[in-house]
Amino acid sequence: MTGDNAWPAFTLTPGPSGATPATLAALGRPILHHQDPAFLALYAEATGLLRRAYGTADDPVIFPGEAVVGLEAAAASLIGPGDVVLNLVSGVFGRAFGRTARQYAGEIIEIEVGDDSAVPAGRVHDALRDRPDISIVSVVHCETPCGTVNDVAAISAAMAGHDALLLVDAVSTFGGTRCDVAGWQPGLVVAAPQKCLGGPPGLSLLHVSEAAWRHMAANPRPPGGAALSLAGWRDAHRGSFPYTPPVAEIYALHACLEQYLAEGPDAVLARHQAAARATRAGVRALGLRLWASDEAICADTVTAVRMPPGVTEADVRAVARSESGVMLSGGQAGLPVLQIGHMGPSASPLTPVIAVVALGRALRRLGAAADVGAAVEAVLGEDSMVTGR
Amino acid sequence: MTGDNAWPAFTLTPGPSGATPATLAALGRPILHHQDPAFLALYAEATGLLRRAYGTADDPVIFPGEAVVGLEAAAASLIGPGDVVLNLVSGVFGRAFGRTARQYAGEIIEIEVGDDSAVPAGRVHDALRDRPDISIVSVVHCETPCGTVNDVAAISAAMAGHDALLLVDAVSTFGGTRCDVAGWQPGLVVAAPQKCLGGPPGLSLLHVSEAAWRHMAANPRPPGGAALSLAGWRDAHRGSFPYTPPVAEIYALHACLEQYLAEGPDAVLARHQAAARATRAGVRALGLRLWASDEAICADTVTAVRMPPGVTEADVRAVARSESGVMLSGGQAGLPVLQIGHMGPSASPLTPVIAVVALGRALRRLGAAADVGAAVEAVLGEDSMVTGR
Amino acid sequence: MTGDNAWPAFTLTPGPSGATPATLAALGRPILHHQDPAFLALYAEATGLLRRAYGTADDPVIFPGEAVVGLEAAAASLIGPGDVVLNLVSGVFGRAFGRTARQYAGEIIEIEVGDDSAVPAGRVHDALRDRPDISIVSVVHCETPCGTVNDVAAISAAMAGHDALLLVDAVSTFGGTRCDVAGWQPGLVVAAPQKCLGGPPGLSLLHVSEAAWRHMAANPRPPGGAALSLAGWRDAHRGSFPYTPPVAEIYALHACLEQYLAEGPDAVLARHQAAARATRAGVRALGLRLWASDEAICADTVTAVRMPPGVTEADVRAVARSESGVMLSGGQAGLPVLQIGHMGPSASPLTPVIAVVALGRALRRLGAAADVGAAVEAVLGEDSMVTGR
Amino acid sequence: MTGDNAWPAFTLTPGPSGATPATLAALGRPILHHQDPAFLALYAEATGLLRRAYGTADDPVIFPGEAVVGLEAAAASLIGPGDVVLNLVSGVFGRAFGRTARQYAGEIIEIEVGDDSAVPAGRVHDALRDRPDISIVSVVHCETPCGTVNDVAAISAAMAGHDALLLVDAVSTFGGTRCDVAGWQPGLVVAAPQKCLGGPPGLSLLHVSEAAWRHMAANPRPPGGAALSLAGWRDAHRGSFPYTPPVAEIYALHACLEQYLAEGPDAVLARHQAAARATRAGVRALGLRLWASDEAICADTVTAVRMPPGVTEADVRAVARSESGVMLSGGQAGLPVLQIGHMGPSASPLTPVIAVVALGRALRRLGAAADVGAAVEAVLGEDSMVTGR
Repeated sequence: MTGDNAWPAFTLTPGPSGATPATLAALGRPILHHQDPAFLALYAEATGLLRRAYGTADDPVIFPGEAVVGLEAAAASLIGPGDVVLNLVSGVFGRAFGRTARQYAGEIIEIEVGDDSAVPAGRVHDALRDRPDISIVSVVHCETPCGTVNDVAAISAAMAGHDALLLVDAVSTFGGTRCDVAGWQPGLVVAAPQKCLGGPPGLSLLHVSEAAWRHMAANPRPPGGAALSLAGWRDAHRGSFPYTPPVAEIYALHACLEQYLAEGPDAVLARHQAAARATRAGVRALGLRLWASDEAICADTVTAVRMPPGVTEADVRAVARSESGVMLSGGQAGLPVLQIGHMGPSASPLTPVIAVVALGRALRRLGAAADVGAAVEAVLGEDSMVTGR
Repeated sequence: MTGDNAWPAFTLTPGPSGATPATLAALGRPILHHQDPAFLALYAEATGLLRRAYGTADDPVIFPGEAVVGLEAAAASLIGPGDVVLNLVSGVFGRAFGRTARQYAGEIIEIEVGDDSAVPAGRVHDALRDRPDISIVSVVHCETPCGTVNDVAAISAAMAGHDALLLVDAVSTFGGTRCDVAGWQPGLVVAAPQKCLGGPPGLSLLHVSEAAWRHMAANPRPPGGAALSLAGWRDAHRGSFPYTPPVAEIYALHACLEQYLAEGPDAVLARHQAAARATRAGVRALGLRLWASDEAICADTVTAVRMPPGVTEADVRAVARSESGVMLSGGQAGLPVLQIGHMGPSASPLTPVIAVVALGRALRRLGAAADVGAAVEAVLGEDSMVTGR
Repeated sequence: MTGDNAWPAFTLTPGPSGATPATLAALGRPILHHQDPAFLALYAEATGLLRRAYGTADDPVIFPGEAVVGLEAAAASLIGPGDVVLNLVSGVFGRAFGRTARQYAGEIIEIEVGDDSAVPAGRVHDALRDRPDISIVSVVHCETPCGTVNDVAAISAAMAGHDALLLVDAVSTFGGTRCDVAGWQPGLVVAAPQKCLGGPPGLSLLHVSEAAWRHMAANPRPPGGAALSLAGWRDAHRGSFPYTPPVAEIYALHACLEQYLAEGPDAVLARHQAAARATRAGVRALGLRLWASDEAICADTVTAVRMPPGVTEADVRAVARSESGVMLSGGQAGLPVLQIGHMGPSASPLTPVIAVVALGRALRRLGAAADVGAAVEAVLGEDSMVTGR
Repeated sequence: MTGDNAWPAFTLTPGPSGATPATLAALGRPILHHQDPAFLALYAEATGLLRRAYGTADDPVIFPGEAVVGLEAAAASLIGPGDVVLNLVSGVFGRAFGRTARQYAGEIIEIEVGDDSAVPAGRVHDALRDRPDISIVSVVHCETPCGTVNDVAAISAAMAGHDALLLVDAVSTFGGTRCDVAGWQPGLVVAAPQKCLGGPPGLSLLHVSEAAWRHMAANPRPPGGAALSLAGWRDAHRGSFPYTPPVAEIYALHACLEQYLAEGPDAVLARHQAAARATRAGVRALGLRLWASDEAICADTVTAVRMPPGVTEADVRAVARSESGVMLSGGQAGLPVLQIGHMGPSASPLTPVIAVVALGRALRRLGAAADVGAAVEAVLGEDSMVTGR
């Protein structure tokens, strides 16, 4: 295995976002057989912890498959030829979900805004008024590549009185941005452990309302096999597995959820908000512009930054990684933006300092100006309320 | 998390089959971002190690998804409406693969034998002679629930001169039973880490020949999304991931393959054969009958045993787990058999002793006779060649 | 590092005695600075857990140094030129303690019995009557090399009315054999984590009564440096460390004690007793003789066995290790005995089976007769009351 | 166990100094019996790795006991009533060693300078000229509490032509500051894993020259027991242990040494020097003064800083820990200095940034001025040569 010394000192990416020692220790527990009573108990416990994290009375579904697979399974299971899907697009992931949904839906209607914008809830209201046959509204809560959020609460409110289901991709918000699942329109929420919960990638965490289960049951063309069937995992917490679940990932999820609930959802939200504010302040003080057209739609979990002329985000990332040992992200789907993740374990008091210093050093090395000192001061100005972790 | 003391002392199931401390330590390494240079290097290394384990010059595919998903993806990717598939059925998994293949194939032809038997290679030869349009032959190497193996080498030989592709489910043989992938007919082999390699469940390990890749490329109805597309992962070892791979599972796979190659494939095979012989001898000395109609088709990785009258395998397993701390398997798909796994870390010198003692104690507790002393002696008689681990 | 495959499959030695996954996970936690508030809290907690395990109101001392060092520190701290020490000798460790005590005491009186025997409490009573100036009585609870126990409760009772302090080496009993510290005469008890608690070697765990602290304070020749001073660690749980404590060992101790208390001292004792009875039955059925002159003085934590003529315990151990992957002990201080540890994690239902099978196989390989089948039956006959772990 | 979230994000103390994931994984390996062949091989390997790190042909001694105990054992073993010891004192640790040596030596002569200074080699030369009967010269390489180093190479050179032994406390330099053990006068060097090697505290690592072994052998009053005898561990790498070694600590040491040698001593030195320069520049830019009277004697492994008027180092540390999650040290033996460790894993490119930001924030919170931005810029100015880790 590659030497440890070559590993990064800091992973500040929008998922995977690092993991605490407690989570890593959980990953390394002995591999139980999936029908072992100890594993069945742990799986049921994990489901219960996830239900508490979702804050509803419904047993959620732990689906073996990374978020992209979980979203595809959600689409394949929920959307049938009789469905008219209103897909909201404000970036890469929304556009991709449209392509996925199109394979299953009778019709897809899209509301698309610029990749640096968010979809206005009013347009959802209008669309539903114009097309009362819309049966599903799909939206990406946080467009990770763009660092922007759609206002799901407002969109949900705009659906009031209409019985379409709401399908939310909350992958990079759940656990770091308020997700009022109990208050939102019934439907389906897809989350994942490798973002704000600080787990490994490999699972999807789905909240499915009773109405959504009924809609699935009525789907005349459900997934033919095991790979895309959500229904197959509905009773997994009762020991009914369609196939062997990823045992180690379940251990890690259990540990992540325990830590999340022990810290407390409100404390976690405050930690993410503080890190986000501080990062944005630091980035601006470096002389850089946020990708989002409006800071009000900036995510609390990831900050997307435009590079100055003559510098590519790929070069900046390479230098930050090699000189400062800091791993950043960027360039997803061709967007010329650098992403700084501050989610899960990386939403901590000094993360924004580390990010802006690594970024500033890299900019200088590449010939661009960067006032790192001012950036650090800006970070401190913003996070003065942050308490230690 | 449930207390450690309630965990089993021994997991002797046919997958998951336990994991060595080195594998568990690898699972607990820090979670890197999947585009981190250290992770890219490790992923490429893991692919290279798997290529060495397969013993061919082709870069294999590490597919995120348990074996059942990997097999479904293989079917979805390889089998199109123009294909005539000859599916060989000698048990639960072969039957299930037929159902999967039927969703994609133009036509399915099946050769089915009893669940305690193996498919004679001669019947494959005859079928190919009768139906020269057969384009794919699919076979399960080891029917785990039955503890039986099909003779893939003979089946492959029976395909000589015919250009059908050979699709082998080698999930519970690869790494514990000879798989002469280089010598078999071109096609596709599906393996997994949680069986003879002693890894966690969650990945499929696919060997795809050039001819199989060409066949996939010509499939007019390839998988529409990411979840079932093998092609999407073909260049993953070059850093091209369709979505985030399960980072921790890759660490574990890397570690498992290093250990497998360090021990040496021949030594590993000998270890599995010795454990299998000893287990069968012990089971017979307990007065039990093997499930297989003929010991010649018994697997080296798992032993399936019939229970005596008046005792159910479920009760035996429950007692073995609670009184002896030994986790066994059984009853898959309704078969009234108990399964003892001796694969990966559990194919070790004393495993058969532990298995027969736990089994014998449970039988007695349930009112059946069992000469445990004789069974242990039989185990020792058989494994006298085994060297320590 | 040497490959994992060369590691033993089972460590059945009288300390170190293996460790549970939870203990190993604790060992691998990040190394805190010893003055870190998180470490101070954990250290104080560990002391509290140890106090509960000792079952008294006194704060015990966690002393950095393996049991041999802990015993030397106890002697150096407690015993001064004014002391007359009555040292009870029934084996290697008692004899060694006499040599240590002689360096510090004014006078040493010894009661010595054969290495296969135990010291009768009556002789202690007589000695105290004859020499009322005896100020300290020292005894080894379990002579690990001999597999024998001295009856500390009876010896303590024999001291009634006499104010000598009782110094007990409870290293290989504490946590596996009843130690009624609260009921024993005041004095000093030395235990360690690597025996019945299933921890790593490296610490001593001392219970010091108020009278013993006073005796130490009055010692005119206390240890001159830090290495042997118990007093220096008296307030360690309040953050006062004479030097940096072994941080990782403290993590492990904390985890071991949590598991011990969660399982419950009575359940732990029963588990050790059952394993001891079963092991002795198995060993006798192999045709071997116990080292102890009387089974009534056999330890619950380790069984010492005489080899048959023509076979050395060293050869037996070597073969058991290489052929069965089972690590046994033996030959301490020249005693021609083989030791089977059944303490801590290795006091489990199937441990005696594994031990007698490995032992029996090795005897046969070395040309001696051994009815392994009968031995296993004898084990099962004895442990039929054992519940699963 | 206290929740993980309360643990510090960064431990920047002069030992323990954190540990890499590879070291932590090694700590969590199964606990072998110390006579297990796998452990004996690993112990011998660790000794060989340490010999390579010391860069001499002599087998070093791994002594179970933290550095304070190791130094006491060195004094007790080496120094006898016939010895005249010249003890060099430039701080807390030198003064303490004088007290220890005085218990064993015939006579102690001391050269003492201020705690912010270093002992001039010329004074050693003069002392040896004046007292040709000096048999041992003892010196602390780095006075950790003061952040200062004595020039051992020059002191050794000043001993040329004199056959006194040189006893060096290299605890907080070995592995981070050049220790030319092969070039120094024969004698004894004491190091430890928890400083620049990034291991857990609990062991001493001793280099003993042939002349020093002879001197020990001639000591008429060697240590009476096991706890302080170096000689007892001389052949430990051949399997001769006076008592059970701390198995897990040996695993960790092995891992640390492998990583140290893989990175390469020169690269490690450069990393420490860069971190030290950058830290000093940052601290000065914060407006603070170094403790050392002369920057030329500042250590590469730890920086000691004076606090501004009205602020105590204890308060600063408490605020840095609670608000920034950064653990610093200070106040050892009453010195009013704050210590920043940059040794082992914490001598990395961004460590100085994290240290000065946490320090600066804490100063401000306590009412003192601190130009954090300028400090970060100063750090970057100094460490521009540092390559990523």
